[in-house]
Amino acid sequence: MYKSEQLAQHLRRLIENGSWPVHTRLPSLREQAEISGFSLMTVMNAYQDLEAQGLIYSKEKSGYFVAENAKTQIPQSATIVSLNPKIEINSLVFKYLKSIQSKDIVPFGSAFPDHHLLTPSKLLQVVSQMARDQKSYDQTTNLPPGNLALRKIIAQRYCMQGIPTDADDIVITSGGLDALNLSLQALTRPGDYILLQQTTFYGAWQAAERLGLKVITLPEHAKYGFDLEAFEQVIQHYPIKVCWFMLNAQNPIGFTVSDEIKYKIAKLLHEHKIYLIEDDVYEELFYGMHKPLSMKYFDRGNLVLHCSSFSKTLGAGFRVGWVYAGKYSEQIQHLQLMSTISANALIQNALVEFVSSHHYEKHLRLLRRRLEKNKKRFAQYLKQHLGQCCEIYNFPSGYFLWIKLPLHISSLELYQKLIIKHISLAPSPLFNVLETNQHYIRLNCSFEWTSRIQDALDQFIQSILNFP
Amino acid sequence: MYKSEQLAQHLRRLIENGSWPVHTRLPSLREQAEISGFSLMTVMNAYQDLEAQGLIYSKEKSGYFVAENAKTQIPQSATIVSLNPKIEINSLVFKYLKSIQSKDIVPFGSAFPDHHLLTPSKLLQVVSQMARDQKSYDQTTNLPPGNLALRKIIAQRYCMQGIPTDADDIVITSGGLDALNLSLQALTRPGDYILLQQTTFYGAWQAAERLGLKVITLPEHAKYGFDLEAFEQVIQHYPIKVCWFMLNAQNPIGFTVSDEIKYKIAKLLHEHKIYLIEDDVYEELFYGMHKPLSMKYFDRGNLVLHCSSFSKTLGAGFRVGWVYAGKYSEQIQHLQLMSTISANALIQNALVEFVSSHHYEKHLRLLRRRLEKNKKRFAQYLKQHLGQCCEIYNFPSGYFLWIKLPLHISSLELYQKLIIKHISLAPSPLFNVLETNQHYIRLNCSFEWTSRIQDALDQFIQSILNFP
Repeated sequence: MYKSEQLAQHLRRLIENGSWPVHTRLPSLREQAEISGFSLMTVMNAYQDLEAQGLIYSKEKSGYFVAENAKTQIPQSATIVSLNPKIEINSLVFKYLKSIQSKDIVPFGSAFPDHHLLTPSKLLQVVSQMARDQKSYDQTTNLPPGNLALRKIIAQRYCMQGIPTDADDIVITSGGLDALNLSLQALTRPGDYILLQQTTFYGAWQAAERLGLKVITLPEHAKYGFDLEAFEQVIQHYPIKVCWFMLNAQNPIGFTVSDEIKYKIAKLLHEHKIYLIEDDVYEELFYGMHKPLSMKYFDRGNLVLHCSSFSKTLGAGFRVGWVYAGKYSEQIQHLQLMSTISANALIQNALVEFVSSHHYEKHLRLLRRRLEKNKKRFAQYLKQHLGQCCEIYNFPSGYFLWIKLPLHISSLELYQKLIIKHISLAPSPLFNVLETNQHYIRLNCSFEWTSRIQDALDQFIQSILNFP
Repeated sequence: MYKSEQLAQHLRRLIENGSWPVHTRLPSLREQAEISGFSLMTVMNAYQDLEAQGLIYSKEKSGYFVAENAKTQIPQSATIVSLNPKIEINSLVFKYLKSIQSKDIVPFGSAFPDHHLLTPSKLLQVVSQMARDQKSYDQTTNLPPGNLALRKIIAQRYCMQGIPTDADDIVITSGGLDALNLSLQALTRPGDYILLQQTTFYGAWQAAERLGLKVITLPEHAKYGFDLEAFEQVIQHYPIKVCWFMLNAQNPIGFTVSDEIKYKIAKLLHEHKIYLIEDDVYEELFYGMHKPLSMKYFDRGNLVLHCSSFSKTLGAGFRVGWVYAGKYSEQIQHLQLMSTISANALIQNALVEFVSSHHYEKHLRLLRRRLEKNKKRFAQYLKQHLGQCCEIYNFPSGYFLWIKLPLHISSLELYQKLIIKHISLAPSPLFNVLETNQHYIRLNCSFEWTSRIQDALDQFIQSILNFP
C-alpha cells in the first residue's frame, strides 16, 4: 500500500468511528505531517483522496473538514484496493504463466481453448495461399487503424447485431489484451479511479497498476453475476472514470449478465458519464440460439469501448484483436504508432478472406458444439466425483468451470501440488486479490475426452479428496 | 511546460545570474508557494528538480541552499528538454504518419525500405509452406521470451560478431520499436533522466513522454557524429539513468560512429553505471566489407540492451524484432505478458526456417547492393541539381539522405507543399524539438530509379529552387 493510502485509511477510520464528528477541522497539512511522521506530499495525497471520496471537504484558506454524510459514504459492498507497484499478482501471474508453458503440461489452467479446435484447415489454406503473394506483406495498408477490408467486415458484424457501426469506428490491435490496454490508456490519467469486477481477468489488475490507477472492486452478485445495487452505490460515492467489465461468459466465473441488467448499467453509465471498457473476447462462444448482446448495444453517448479478438475463435498465435473505439479511434492509433505500430499484415489480409466467407460461421458453429460437448463431459465427471465436496459453477457458454474447493484447501497449494505432476490449474489468487477468496479454481474444459485427460482429471480429483 | 518546470527555470535563472549566491538559503516550500502563487506540490517538484540537477542541496530540517558549483553546473552543450504531455511532436508525428499512408504517395518520407526489395520469394515459400501446418500456429512455444529456435539463431549471430550470447539473453518482440519501448519501461521509473541524441528517431521522444521521463539531449558532433566531450560533461552533471542511442547508420542523419568512440562511450557508461538502450535496426544495411560493431560488443557489466528487428531487412509487416535483454529478460517478459503477449507464432516459426538457411545471407547481400546502388543514383542526381544550395549528408550505409535546406526554407512548409502533390518527405521537426533545427529533411532513397521516381524528385528539386 502507498503511504498516502495508509494514512487515508487511518483517517477514514477516525471519521467512521465518530472520533472526528461532522465539520471537525482536520489538522493542517503541516500539523498532520508532524503528527504522522509522513511527508507533506504524502499528507496532501491522503487528504485529496479523502476529498475525492466525499469524506472531507475543503474551504479555501481554512483547511479541510469532515463532510456531512461522511459516516455513510462508503458502500460496504465495494472494496477500495490500492495497488502497490510490488503487488503480488504480477509475479504470481508471471510464475503461473511460465509454469504452464511447457507442452508436457495438461493445460487445465490455460486461458485458451484447445488449439486443435481452432485454426480450421480452410483458414490454413487461405493463409498459405496469401503468403505466396508479396502484396500480402505490405505494411502500408495495414497500419492503424488497420486493414480497411477487415474493419468493414467487423463493422458489418456489429451492424448485424443491431449496433450501427462504420469501419472507421474499429481499430485493429495486436490481440484482445492490446485492445483493452490501449483503451484504458486512452481514457485515463494516473490517479484516476477505475472500477473492476472483484473476480476478474488478471490483465485488468496489471493494466491498472501499470497506469497508476486507483482500483475499486465490485463483488459479483451470487445470483445475477452483476450486483446492480452495489454498482449504483459505488458510482455515487467514488469519482469513477472508467469501468472495465466482462459481462458475457465472464472470465473466470463464466456467468452472462441479463439484458435487463445490461440496460440498467448502460443507463447508469450515461447518467454519471462513466466510460466502460467491455472485455467481450468470448462473445462468440455461447451455446444457445442467440449471441448475447454486448454492452455496446445498450451504449448511450459513446461511452462503451467494446474489445474483442480472434484469439479465442481462430487462434491466439495470430495476435489480431480489435476495439470498437468510435471517437477514441485517433487517440488509440496515436498509442499504437508509438508502440507495436500494427498487427501482422499477412494475417490481417488472410482474415479478410476467411472471415468474409461462410467458412467462418461454419467454423464457429462447429467450435461451439465441440466446446459445449467437451465441457458437459467434464462437468458430469467432476460432479459425479466432487459433487459432495465442491461447488461447481457451470454456465452455458465458454469452456471454463469455476470450482469452489472445500474451505481447508487453498487453490494455490492445490495448483502447486498438481503442477509437479504436470497438470495445471488456474487458482483464484490470479483473479482476486482479496484474501477471503482463495478457494476457487478455474478449469479449462475445452479438451476432447482422452485417456490422458481422464487420467489428469482423476489426479485432480484425488488431490482434492485426499488433501491433507 | 509543466508548472513545476516553469518555476524551476525561473529559479535557475536567479542562481545563474548570481541573484542568489552560493549557500543562500532558498525560501521554504510554503514561502515559495506564497511568493510564486504555485501550489505546495508544484514548488516541491521544482525544488526536487533543481536538486537532481545539482543546483541546490538540502539539509534536513533547515531547507534548501544554492550549491557550490551551481553556476557552472549546466553544460552548454546539452539541452534539458521538459516534455509536456501535449508536446507538439506527438500530433505532428501522427499527422505525418497518416499523410504518408496512402499508396498514391511517392514515399520519400517513409522510414521503411521499398518493400519490393524485402520479402524475398524464398521466404514467401517458407511462410506459405508452414502456414499449411496447424502446429505452426501454436502459441505455447512462441510465448515470451519467444520461439527457442529463433532465439538460438539470433544468439548465434551475436556470437559470430564476437559477442558471447545465449538464447536466454534474447527476447523476441513485436517489432523493433516494441523492443525499444519494453527496454525503456523495464529500466526506468517516472521522473528518471534519459539522454537522447538531439536529432533522433521520434519514437524515443514519444516513449520518454509516455513514461514520464525527463529528457536531456546531446547534440551530434559535426565530424564524428557523436560528441564524446559533451557526453562526458552531461553524465557528470545530470543523474542520467538511461541513454537511448543509435550509433550505426543513425536515423535520420545516417552517420556511423567509430569503434574508438564506441569503446570510450562504453567505458564512461561503465564508470557511471548508466544503461544504454541501443537502437540498431539498420545494423545489416552497411555497404562495406564489415558489419559495424554494436555498442553491445563494447559493453561491460550488462549495461547495454541491444534492440533490432527483421523489419528493415525482411519486411515491416512481420512485426518481429528482438532485444538482447540479458539479465533483464524476465522483467521484459513480464511487460510483454501484460500487453502484446507475444509476436505472431507463424512468422516466428517461418523465420527460424529462413534465417537459418543460406538464403538469408544471400538476401542481405543483394539488399545491401541494391540499396547502395539506388542511394548513389539519388545522391548524384540531387547533388547535380541541388549541390549549389543544399548540403547533402551522404553516408555509406542505409537508405537515407539527410539534406540541409537553404535557411529561408522551413522543412515543414516544404513537406506541406509536396504532400499536396502526393510526394512525402520527413521534415526535421519530426526528429528534433529545438526551434533552431527546422531546415533539414530526411529522404528515403531505397527506390529503383523509374520515371515516376525521377518526376517526383524533379518536383522536389523545383520546390526548393522556386521556394518563395
